[in-house]
Amino acid sequence: MRIDVLSLFPNMFTGVLNESILKRAKEIGKVEYNVINFREYANNKHNTVDDYPYGGGAGMVLKPEPIFNAVESIKAKTSSKPRVILLCPQGEQYTQKKAEELAKEEHLVFICGHYEGYDERIRMHLVTDEISIGDYVLTGGELGAMVIIDSVVRLLPGVLGNEDSPVLDSFSTGLLEHPQYTRPAEFRGMKVPDVLLSGNHQLIEEWRRKQSLKRTLERRPDLLHHYPLSDQDKKWLEEIKAKKHDSNL
Amino acid sequence: MRIDVLSLFPNMFTGVLNESILKRAKEIGKVEYNVINFREYANNKHNTVDDYPYGGGAGMVLKPEPIFNAVESIKAKTSSKPRVILLCPQGEQYTQKKAEELAKEEHLVFICGHYEGYDERIRMHLVTDEISIGDYVLTGGELGAMVIIDSVVRLLPGVLGNEDSPVLDSFSTGLLEHPQYTRPAEFRGMKVPDVLLSGNHQLIEEWRRKQSLKRTLERRPDLLHHYPLSDQDKKWLEEIKAKKHDSNL
Repeated sequence: MRIDVLSLFPNMFTGVLNESILKRAKEIGKVEYNVINFREYANNKHNTVDDYPYGGGAGMVLKPEPIFNAVESIKAKTSSKPRVILLCPQGEQYTQKKAEELAKEEHLVFICGHYEGYDERIRMHLVTDEISIGDYVLTGGELGAMVIIDSVVRLLPGVLGNEDSPVLDSFSTGLLEHPQYTRPAEFRGMKVPDVLLSGNHQLIEEWRRKQSLKRTLERRPDLLHHYPLSDQDKKWLEEIKAKKHDSNL
Repeated sequence: MRIDVLSLFPNMFTGVLNESILKRAKEIGKVEYNVINFREYANNKHNTVDDYPYGGGAGMVLKPEPIFNAVESIKAKTSSKPRVILLCPQGEQYTQKKAEELAKEEHLVFICGHYEGYDERIRMHLVTDEISIGDYVLTGGELGAMVIIDSVVRLLPGVLGNEDSPVLDSFSTGLLEHPQYTRPAEFRGMKVPDVLLSGNHQLIEEWRRKQSLKRTLERRPDLLHHYPLSDQDKKWLEEIKAKKHDSNL
């Protein structure tokens, strides 16, 4: 996969792309990153990339030319037809399903604005996807691009070794993860639940499943609506609802 | 505000904390960042921070000692009572409202796991908030911590100058932003809507409001449920629904 990023702050990406899984994916040849300052594509005297909004109002708006020029220069160098992704609060809400979809692409281009809005012509005629990573306000699109890059690259075949088996993959299973414990069995008086030390795998699986259902019910009941619950799951959920204050559940 | 981050990949933060608004906030004394590798707090022979899960299963689990020790060392140095935030998929979903809440604190501590799960005792006895930035799987908590730091620090009084007036603040107003245009008025045959060039401010405001309602209706109808629509807004929404294919709307 080839990933190009357009940003006015390319240095923001250095740390994130050069550590851990994103670094390893590059080293083993699964992905190539290219971060471009699109100010280089501003063909005007002062290299300006933004200007006042037509119709008045606060804030600046990113001009179309530098971003069109930068994206076209990227496209000219490859035969692939990239997905061109705009990070913005008005975009579709990012989900694991979208990550899986993007992981099938050969080439992704990210456009990151910073403080400013985007000229609407960029949205209408240049981008293929507008994405928001969540309902909160960020200074720019850079962190959104990093989030998407991380979530996509880790899905590329061969990138995650077995040793990094994704324990936290709640959104792959559709239920929240059950509690995890490791040594010591007692830490400052706080003990690991007996069942996990019992060696009885059937009881352990049952405890974990119930905990997973309980945590999902308490924290993210919306996830249960889409989840294919078994009859046993439904029975346990009823038990959990009935005995809310039973600490064994 | 003081911000401490516990991570096994402290270099990931370098680029993001040293550019743009987060850098400026530090330079003008509004915030102090401190990124700690909590491996330094592993008091065991091999500096291990994780171990196998009790009860079996794939993946590793972060041990309680190093993280308890690191957080306690931070607490011992200050008189403030920090919010201790764990980044995890099981956490509450991050929103702008939470950003505003955290921006009132004096001291935030972020715990970032990486691949691994957390020993449940960390969750139960050390952290004050568990947060997820969205329904997608990331390699670690680092990007989540950066997202929260960015969204919080930009809210601190004096950090954003007027020149950075947040055009993109959809989630502060509750509706998605209307389209923005800047020069040139015509770019490769793509024109700015006439109304924005008209100089008629009342018409411009009306157009923008309708566009904002239309975009919210099309992309995020859920936001309309919570938004205090005026009678005029409701009338326009009815018009928009009736004339879905009218390109003037």
